[in-house]
Amino acid sequence: MLSENKTADVSFESLLRIFTVPEAPDSTLSRIETELSQNLNQFLREHIVAEEKRLSDIEKDFSDPILPEKPSFVSDHTQHLLDTLVSQSVHTSAPSFIGHMTSALPYFIMPLSKIMIALNQNLVKIETSKAFTPLERQVLGMLHRLFYAESDAFYTKWMHSAKHSLGAFCSGGTIANITALWVARNNALKADGTFRGVESEGLFRAMKYYGYDDLAILVSERGHYSLRKAANILGIGQDNLIAVKTDDNNRTCIQDLEQKLSDLKRKNIKPFAIIGVAGTTETGNIDPLREMAEISHREQCHFHVDAAWGGATMMSKNNRHLLDGVELADSITIDAHKQLYLPMGAGMVLFKNPDAVSVIEHHAEYILRKGSKDLGSHTLEGSRSGMAMLVYAAMHIISRPGYELLIDASINKAKYFADLISKQEDFELISDPELCLLTYRYVPEKAQKALSLAAGDHKDKLHRLLNELTTYIQKRQRESGKSFVSRTRLNPAKWDYLDTIVFRVVLANPLTTESILSAILEEQRDIAAHCHSLRKEIDELIEKIQDSN
Amino acid sequence: MLSENKTADVSFESLLRIFTVPEAPDSTLSRIETELSQNLNQFLREHIVAEEKRLSDIEKDFSDPILPEKPSFVSDHTQHLLDTLVSQSVHTSAPSFIGHMTSALPYFIMPLSKIMIALNQNLVKIETSKAFTPLERQVLGMLHRLFYAESDAFYTKWMHSAKHSLGAFCSGGTIANITALWVARNNALKADGTFRGVESEGLFRAMKYYGYDDLAILVSERGHYSLRKAANILGIGQDNLIAVKTDDNNRTCIQDLEQKLSDLKRKNIKPFAIIGVAGTTETGNIDPLREMAEISHREQCHFHVDAAWGGATMMSKNNRHLLDGVELADSITIDAHKQLYLPMGAGMVLFKNPDAVSVIEHHAEYILRKGSKDLGSHTLEGSRSGMAMLVYAAMHIISRPGYELLIDASINKAKYFADLISKQEDFELISDPELCLLTYRYVPEKAQKALSLAAGDHKDKLHRLLNELTTYIQKRQRESGKSFVSRTRLNPAKWDYLDTIVFRVVLANPLTTESILSAILEEQRDIAAHCHSLRKEIDELIEKIQDSN
Repeated sequence: MLSENKTADVSFESLLRIFTVPEAPDSTLSRIETELSQNLNQFLREHIVAEEKRLSDIEKDFSDPILPEKPSFVSDHTQHLLDTLVSQSVHTSAPSFIGHMTSALPYFIMPLSKIMIALNQNLVKIETSKAFTPLERQVLGMLHRLFYAESDAFYTKWMHSAKHSLGAFCSGGTIANITALWVARNNALKADGTFRGVESEGLFRAMKYYGYDDLAILVSERGHYSLRKAANILGIGQDNLIAVKTDDNNRTCIQDLEQKLSDLKRKNIKPFAIIGVAGTTETGNIDPLREMAEISHREQCHFHVDAAWGGATMMSKNNRHLLDGVELADSITIDAHKQLYLPMGAGMVLFKNPDAVSVIEHHAEYILRKGSKDLGSHTLEGSRSGMAMLVYAAMHIISRPGYELLIDASINKAKYFADLISKQEDFELISDPELCLLTYRYVPEKAQKALSLAAGDHKDKLHRLLNELTTYIQKRQRESGKSFVSRTRLNPAKWDYLDTIVFRVVLANPLTTESILSAILEEQRDIAAHCHSLRKEIDELIEKIQDSN
Repeated sequence: MLSENKTADVSFESLLRIFTVPEAPDSTLSRIETELSQNLNQFLREHIVAEEKRLSDIEKDFSDPILPEKPSFVSDHTQHLLDTLVSQSVHTSAPSFIGHMTSALPYFIMPLSKIMIALNQNLVKIETSKAFTPLERQVLGMLHRLFYAESDAFYTKWMHSAKHSLGAFCSGGTIANITALWVARNNALKADGTFRGVESEGLFRAMKYYGYDDLAILVSERGHYSLRKAANILGIGQDNLIAVKTDDNNRTCIQDLEQKLSDLKRKNIKPFAIIGVAGTTETGNIDPLREMAEISHREQCHFHVDAAWGGATMMSKNNRHLLDGVELADSITIDAHKQLYLPMGAGMVLFKNPDAVSVIEHHAEYILRKGSKDLGSHTLEGSRSGMAMLVYAAMHIISRPGYELLIDASINKAKYFADLISKQEDFELISDPELCLLTYRYVPEKAQKALSLAAGDHKDKLHRLLNELTTYIQKRQRESGKSFVSRTRLNPAKWDYLDTIVFRVVLANPLTTESILSAILEEQRDIAAHCHSLRKEIDELIEKIQDSN
């Protein structure tokens, strides 16, 4: 493994060296690390190849299931990783990568991450984390206060209380949502009289004890797919995740929510959780949280807000009003690896009531003993890393006003881009940005007129061809390697709720400039112009539509 | 945030700099990073203070729930982290830290981790991970092959198949165990005739359709506490996690397993999963996997093996026979952050049958589209980091024979330590090491004789006092900061199944020497000698016991 060991077989002594002798400063690994530390974007530009290699070709590099029988030198293996892995990775921090919620990272995060990993703390228990445990509790307290703004006395009393939690750190929004709904389910089916609670007796007995015919969770049709996973794992069933209709702005339609609730009650189905989305994954819109909270309260439902992506907006005094009513939520999901600019793996769920987690409390003999402050007593995950340290550092170094500037700049940039799209004759804005996320598509001018004229089969076909065109442009643009937008399927009221494929952009990267946005539209227009066969088909259909009018 | 900005308020320009300008080589953060890279142990020895600060004092440093309204300089904040956090962390990689499963890390992991974090890939989908997706599939393939040793054709066919998975990466063993039992539950209650499966219709309807009165999971009383969490979240109920008795070696008692199974069937309760433990958390023993697999097969139960800690033993041709029968498991949990010497957050579950995950498959419109190779279609978690890269690198750099040397050395060291303990007049070995984990306690010579003479209340009381002594020694030793062993509660047959508090050591750190082990015993003896009040109480009780005989 080490250079001294070139010809020898692996020995215990050479193994000890990898635990005791650091990489030499002139080793390949050290050089790469330095290069990357000095200019990450340059490093990635040089090493991540622009032209997309086919996935099937990449797979060939990763097709050997046999564990190596010979050790590799660190430098040789590092070179191998550069050639096969780094070169074929996605430059998620590129200012032109505006397709997903993964953005650029501040520089200081990288050395801090290394320190965090070297410390290798395990946050499940104090014996393997010590100061990291109070630190994590403080981070949860800070975010709890950002949303709920309880009194100083509240935080003094609960932040470090052994039997309470203001929330839980977890790997991401999915586990955060599942944890919130787990708490909600267990509170809805809690111990009562002779019944010892769903956590002890299971869901089947709980349902018989409470006399419900089914349970249900309500969320708008724009809810995140992780909620289906939650309904599945919790034994609720995906059919019982009830999709509430949305209005023209992709927000929960209150009238339909009321209708669905009364339908459920008529069928003796217990709605135990209502979910508001604060920044939908596909359109970035925010549900009418205050009204939903009031309905949840009236119905004695747990009100959860999935603010995995949009929650960071609370950092901005100028824009936090968009989440009005979020403070009424029983629980809130927020991902620090989205708009708090932290690396992957920093999800959190917050609980309004510090006592909420008592229904998921668990203990063991060698750790998590009763009365201990071990964080693992109230988390879905067990062993966990000290990710909270990075959130703590970023909140101190960037500070709330710093985040405010970032959030405001992103929202303004999205408004600018929406405006730019609207001014183009051959683009159509599909969803207006409420936060920094918007959707649009390319529609040739002639096709726009034809769309308004067309009816029946012609209309459906033109719509389908435009969907194919959007899909083609999105794939081609990604493959060309210069920029990346994602795509999704929406059903806009304007187009009679027909399946509509759209480009989706998330403008959280502070390095994305207006000229990059213009260039992205230009590139899409250019790809569209060169898609001859599809364009020909569209043109022929347009002629038919014109002829029949 | 940057030094140029000392007096100014936060501005968008200064924020852009933290995304574009790296830390200067002479900054506090860069210096610390270099120091740590050059000698991690020295760095930790210098910065982690030996004398334990009280948790309540540490909490004072982390008690402010208010988000900072002013930015901090990176260097200032780094110094603050050193003073309050790093200094009060646990030196998990110290050779004398032998209390938990967190061990030393090879040096090359640290720069590689930094590269992994800088790349900030999201493994939920190919669009944000690209080559990382096939890499993760290869790592799962390599570990699958290590356990199941299927043919080359098997891996060629399944490793990169879109609709299949040989396993799933996850944050740790808890999520791995939950994922395995989720698959098991959904397969036990799968779609059938008009019933569309528990995943769609929920557990209550599934139970009525299948006509069971309850479901059950069976595992020995030494099973990990995460299994109770799994039973809770899956709606099975913790009461239905049936604890099978263990024999004198902490292994599942087959006779009791058979008895429990027939009891369940008589009550119309469906046992859908049997769990074998390969390396129990508290004693390190391995269940009779082959016999358990045969019983599971006969009963049409899912057979899961929790090898989170012990699974790495498969790397050693000399010791893998200890896990005989593991290849018959339907699913296996293994944590790379335990005996594969990787940092926290590298759990995995493996599935024998590549089709097993179809019952937990899920899709969305903007990612995980049907037919895509997005890993997120078959994982409990959503967004995830590229941790698989570190496992891949370690397997190549260390190689299988390297891991074999490490595993064998750990087991031999545990045998040596067991022998050393047995030779002491005032220590008692409680559980013999099968892998590198053992338990023991300190019992003064006189007390040992008295224990064999005592009966009734005297015996109970002496036992209780010895438990207090063990607890005292363990806490005192941890607080003194030189070394750390953990403690747990066992019920050894030898002591009439009375609650017995024991020291627990895990000898996986290759840097732990024989002299460190001797010093740990010496320190414990010394602490015991100075525990005057408890020793006096024990001595007085011994006299009473001697008098009454």
